[in-house]
Amino acid sequence: MSYFLLLFTVFAASVSAAPKKKLIGSELLEASKPTDWRTPDQGNLLYFEMNQGRVVIELAPEYAPRHVARIKDLAGQKYWDGLAVVRVQDNYVVQWADPNAEKPELKRKFKGSEEVLPAELDVEIPKGKMEFTKLPDKDVYADETGFTNGMAAGRDKKLKRTWLLHCYGAVGVGRDNAPESGDGTELYAVISGSPRHLDRNVTVVGRIIQGAEVFSSLPRGHGTLGFFDKDKGEKPLPIKSLRLGTEVPEKERVNLEILRTDTPLFAQMILAKRTREEEWFHYRAGKIDACNFPIPVRERKN
Amino acid sequence: MSYFLLLFTVFAASVSAAPKKKLIGSELLEASKPTDWRTPDQGNLLYFEMNQGRVVIELAPEYAPRHVARIKDLAGQKYWDGLAVVRVQDNYVVQWADPNAEKPELKRKFKGSEEVLPAELDVEIPKGKMEFTKLPDKDVYADETGFTNGMAAGRDKKLKRTWLLHCYGAVGVGRDNAPESGDGTELYAVISGSPRHLDRNVTVVGRIIQGAEVFSSLPRGHGTLGFFDKDKGEKPLPIKSLRLGTEVPEKERVNLEILRTDTPLFAQMILAKRTREEEWFHYRAGKIDACNFPIPVRERKN
Repeated sequence: MSYFLLLFTVFAASVSAAPKKKLIGSELLEASKPTDWRTPDQGNLLYFEMNQGRVVIELAPEYAPRHVARIKDLAGQKYWDGLAVVRVQDNYVVQWADPNAEKPELKRKFKGSEEVLPAELDVEIPKGKMEFTKLPDKDVYADETGFTNGMAAGRDKKLKRTWLLHCYGAVGVGRDNAPESGDGTELYAVISGSPRHLDRNVTVVGRIIQGAEVFSSLPRGHGTLGFFDKDKGEKPLPIKSLRLGTEVPEKERVNLEILRTDTPLFAQMILAKRTREEEWFHYRAGKIDACNFPIPVRERKN
Repeated sequence: MSYFLLLFTVFAASVSAAPKKKLIGSELLEASKPTDWRTPDQGNLLYFEMNQGRVVIELAPEYAPRHVARIKDLAGQKYWDGLAVVRVQDNYVVQWADPNAEKPELKRKFKGSEEVLPAELDVEIPKGKMEFTKLPDKDVYADETGFTNGMAAGRDKKLKRTWLLHCYGAVGVGRDNAPESGDGTELYAVISGSPRHLDRNVTVVGRIIQGAEVFSSLPRGHGTLGFFDKDKGEKPLPIKSLRLGTEVPEKERVNLEILRTDTPLFAQMILAKRTREEEWFHYRAGKIDACNFPIPVRERKN
């Protein structure tokens, strides 16, 4: 028996010249046009460098304008350089912060680093300004889910609010018990499934578009909640640097493009992900969970 | 600001003597009785040993009797000793197999190792034999979800079928395109969220009860679908041994207990997970996804 293949997103499939009725995600991608893709703004990218590798995050200022502005400002000050990943909780999150955050005399104090921001747990749905490709299937947690600008989002129809979902790779802002207690210095990324019970509880600022595996394969912490435990010989994992793309030398920047989520092709992709016409599938659910549809990211060809 | 805490399952909370209206999962666990827990049968445990650590899997013969019997038989023959993890796909699965599976002259041939088994994608719901604690919330993929014997399961009401869900830590049997093409030699474990589109497409045989982090923090493979790519200098990661608990020396066995899923306490746990009355939560979804409720496992005290 040859290795079996659990089909996920395969970019290498070829497209038949003959018209096909069956929609297969890899074939749709192969047939996509340059206009089906968007190039993220380097001014919205965060480059997280550690010994284990590089993680690139796309920020979503439309969902959390104040927090994104704070993060950009702190990155510009090199606030996180030399700070560390202090927590890796299996099946949950990676979190980075000042390891001396609890020692007032030792903690790093930069402009804005101690100013708590109003929470941005969800935002009003602006009229006509925020495209939303809605999924046809029911969601466990939200009235509606779908995609906006390459990120999975939920909507509350009654309150007319929207928020980014806690899918794999989502990046959010740590806080204490009060919702208004985050200052943007402590951030986390989801390294496992979809802790959707966190939705609307924390300010989500974006998602990882490259290098998520660097975070998810880090050694786990064995203190409470996955914090590294000194008594068990564990140490925080240093951050080399955290920079906005516009402050990274041009030749070191990524050259990525992300599938647009507001195109006819994307609508077909959703259908393909729901019906899974690939030969391997035996049972076709005909449904899709927003977090089970990672938005394709690829190297730009030019 | 002190480290913020994303609450998950904290076992260390204390219980107030005063009666409480609010249900908090950690407090319920703290107040649990010995009869709220079950000790898994060592005859249903698989001990997976590799240099990176040990993973313990509980098999579920009621869902996949033939495949579980095959796996037990192969483990008894030490089939997997010296074979390897051949695939680690980020945000998806770890898979182990014979690295020479595609080379007929080199592949390992043991009793049963080349006999394809009938697929066990789902099973008929037996009358009165399989307790099922149903979740009250709608699921994206299944008519009903809930828990049976400590594992998350789905049900098809019309067809009266049930199956184990692809949650974090689920273990399944690799196959080729035909549903009836798995022989039990190639197994995989879910290392990320909930690839629920795999439900009823592959035979699920159980779930990891200890050491999931050993798998999820393995280095990723960078060949197609996360297979290790020789041309990129990657090699399969050797398996030291894979044994049934009954064949592991007694002093090396785990001494774990798992929360029962058919008790009044468990019903309260579900409510607690839905409403999240912990002080940290601001927005209480009042809903829960089956895969967002990892069944508690703990060391036995005796």
